[in-house]
Amino acid sequence: MENPILMELFSQLDTLLEERKFSQAAALAKDLMPADAALLLEELPEQKMPVLFRLCPKELAADAFAYMSPEAQEVLVQSFSDLELDEVMGQLFLDDTVDLIEEMPANVVKKILRHVDADTRRMINQVLNYPKDSAGSIMTMEYVDLKRSMTVEQAFQRIRRTGVEKETIYTCYVTDSRRKLLGIVTVKDLLLAQNDQILRDIMETNVKFVHTHTDQEEAARQLSRYDFLALPVVDGEQRLVGIVTVDDAMDVIQEEATEDIEKMAAMAPSDRPYMRTGIWETWRHRVPWLLFLMISATFTSGIISAYEGALAASVVLTGFIPMLMDTGGNSGGQSSATIIRGLSLGEIQYRDVPRVLLKECAVALLNGGTLAVANFAKLMLFDRVGLLVSAVVCTTLLAVVLAANLVGSSLPVLAKRLGFDPAVMASPLITTIVDAIALTVYFNIAKLILGI
Amino acid sequence: MENPILMELFSQLDTLLEERKFSQAAALAKDLMPADAALLLEELPEQKMPVLFRLCPKELAADAFAYMSPEAQEVLVQSFSDLELDEVMGQLFLDDTVDLIEEMPANVVKKILRHVDADTRRMINQVLNYPKDSAGSIMTMEYVDLKRSMTVEQAFQRIRRTGVEKETIYTCYVTDSRRKLLGIVTVKDLLLAQNDQILRDIMETNVKFVHTHTDQEEAARQLSRYDFLALPVVDGEQRLVGIVTVDDAMDVIQEEATEDIEKMAAMAPSDRPYMRTGIWETWRHRVPWLLFLMISATFTSGIISAYEGALAASVVLTGFIPMLMDTGGNSGGQSSATIIRGLSLGEIQYRDVPRVLLKECAVALLNGGTLAVANFAKLMLFDRVGLLVSAVVCTTLLAVVLAANLVGSSLPVLAKRLGFDPAVMASPLITTIVDAIALTVYFNIAKLILGI
Repeated sequence: MENPILMELFSQLDTLLEERKFSQAAALAKDLMPADAALLLEELPEQKMPVLFRLCPKELAADAFAYMSPEAQEVLVQSFSDLELDEVMGQLFLDDTVDLIEEMPANVVKKILRHVDADTRRMINQVLNYPKDSAGSIMTMEYVDLKRSMTVEQAFQRIRRTGVEKETIYTCYVTDSRRKLLGIVTVKDLLLAQNDQILRDIMETNVKFVHTHTDQEEAARQLSRYDFLALPVVDGEQRLVGIVTVDDAMDVIQEEATEDIEKMAAMAPSDRPYMRTGIWETWRHRVPWLLFLMISATFTSGIISAYEGALAASVVLTGFIPMLMDTGGNSGGQSSATIIRGLSLGEIQYRDVPRVLLKECAVALLNGGTLAVANFAKLMLFDRVGLLVSAVVCTTLLAVVLAANLVGSSLPVLAKRLGFDPAVMASPLITTIVDAIALTVYFNIAKLILGI
Repeated sequence: MENPILMELFSQLDTLLEERKFSQAAALAKDLMPADAALLLEELPEQKMPVLFRLCPKELAADAFAYMSPEAQEVLVQSFSDLELDEVMGQLFLDDTVDLIEEMPANVVKKILRHVDADTRRMINQVLNYPKDSAGSIMTMEYVDLKRSMTVEQAFQRIRRTGVEKETIYTCYVTDSRRKLLGIVTVKDLLLAQNDQILRDIMETNVKFVHTHTDQEEAARQLSRYDFLALPVVDGEQRLVGIVTVDDAMDVIQEEATEDIEKMAAMAPSDRPYMRTGIWETWRHRVPWLLFLMISATFTSGIISAYEGALAASVVLTGFIPMLMDTGGNSGGQSSATIIRGLSLGEIQYRDVPRVLLKECAVALLNGGTLAVANFAKLMLFDRVGLLVSAVVCTTLLAVVLAANLVGSSLPVLAKRLGFDPAVMASPLITTIVDAIALTVYFNIAKLILGI
């Protein structure tokens, strides 16, 4: 809670509840935005949370519930009477109900499902059956459907009658009797049309849609690309089964960026915010990569041992190892981060790969050249190392940066081609590979130039 | 262009244009989505692009223009007759016009401004004056404003009359005669109300808004948090000056994630997609950090030189340097990436810092412990290194991971506190710092245990 107004409100509410001044607390809470109410509720101690929840207007309380963390939702559900649970479940949108059921322990799920009608239960089961991270798993089934023979006036009547419970009314879907998607009509289209026009004549029939099994990231990307408020989801027979709304698409984009960043830092992605992840869970997400990379790094030790003779002959060479390894890792990390993000945003396609590799080589020569010149000047002027050693270090620098950029830009593409997430081919793994290359190149150039 | 349907369409259009079968090309193009039309236009050779543009229906052409890259827009503007430019500029939304003007060279801007009326020119200047990356710079001034004394019917009349040219009509803004923002009414509210109800009675007066100088990322985050379709932007006197729409907020979220990833990989962020950035520009974005990190890394060389005696006494120690440095860097990188993302999403606040540091230490002990045990087993069983050397390596491992996580989690917080972007405190910089710590710890533990 960074917002000072909310923090002030929180301490007021906390005090009022402490002093049992409930009507004053209710007056303060009644105009809150649902997202803010959720935040305040979560911050309250466990025994006060249900009290404030009951003081909120029913609709606000139910809306706020949908925004709360699973932990807080569980506390509330456990404290609910049957009547209260009925009310909250009646207000929740289907996709929020599904999220809730996915997060709750089995006994709570049982309690919840007793308060859901058979029809909703069937729909919940359907959504739960779609693969994790698919469009089907994040869609809602609560959209407005219209028939193509309706007039604009009839369409408005239907929206008025059924729209209250729908997640969005602004894009309506025209379907046939078998629920096949025929077209879309926006409320803007309807408002700008005459009351007696037929939907068939004003609907947009060139409709973009995704399938239930489409990756949620792809669905979010399409929605963003076309600036839609909602994107229809169809099954194998082109029947409309749900819609993905722009607010959920936005959450997907945030989550996927977080997941990429976690993978790029050699961690297994986590579903939960950092402050709500336990120490053991964090350990489980981080240690496998650390172990794997540590073992891989011992190969570099093997390389150093193999060239112990060269090192013994020219001890000064050891001092440059960290700098060469770090620079290679940094340069390769730049390339891989750029390519991974480009692939993830769809800015780089397979057919661009030759151009990408050429460009990375060109940039590597410029970068490596700049670094080599700077380092040579420093070595000769400040460190007063011999000309030959300086030559060894700077030639290696150029070669290492070139190799690093090639490895850094080609491995993410290769990973994608093989069906892996390119994000794992980021700095940590690239660094380990580039380290081995850097040392081999270094010692061989040293042997060549210094004749050791 | 990954989409096979679009690729097929592209080659058909290209051939039809080649063979000068214009009416067939026009028939193919007329039902395209604007975003798709933009993509196809951009892919065409420069001489064919204006041809297809003219074959598209006027509205589609103007919409597609807004989606195109600055390079393609420039080609088109240069080829436009006065009449064509008039038409396109008349169709463009204000925020797209501003984007266009920001990207075009001076002579093209002059040409464009001749085709814009005085009123629009004044608004363009206003938006251009807001700081880069502020809410003011991404807002549009084309919203529907209503008066609180209007009836629902009057509101619908106004929406019908003025709505065609507005970016969104679904959230309308109720202002007083001095443009002060009094409340909001959604089209859903209007549809569910009676025709003779007065807006004063149905409008939502608890309105969330941002200021023109609010950071665009903060505006996008608020919009996403409250699941809004648009967020009002007010000036210093609480007067409504514009709105930020959800599609622009989504772009901001994408861009900011890309910027974070670039900074975390030690690059200056780039405004342009990778495939449209030149080699020299890429070099300029990457080389400063590489240089800085390379110079910093030479301090590690200094440390190695300082302990040359210890190394000479036990040459086997050299071989573990890369593994220890890499592991420290990887572990610190995990911590910093987690904290940076948490800060950027607002999941971690300043008051959480003590808990964060404690948690990172606990995870470091678990991670370091696991790695030390694994490494000890490997050293004793496979590498058959002496017990003392193994003890040195594994104790160092534990200490390095602990130091790395502390550095990795505290530096991003410190950077934010000092007003810098936490994202620069990511793996590359952390690695350099941790390297120096790792070597110092290593040699001192070696001296202590081995007595060299």
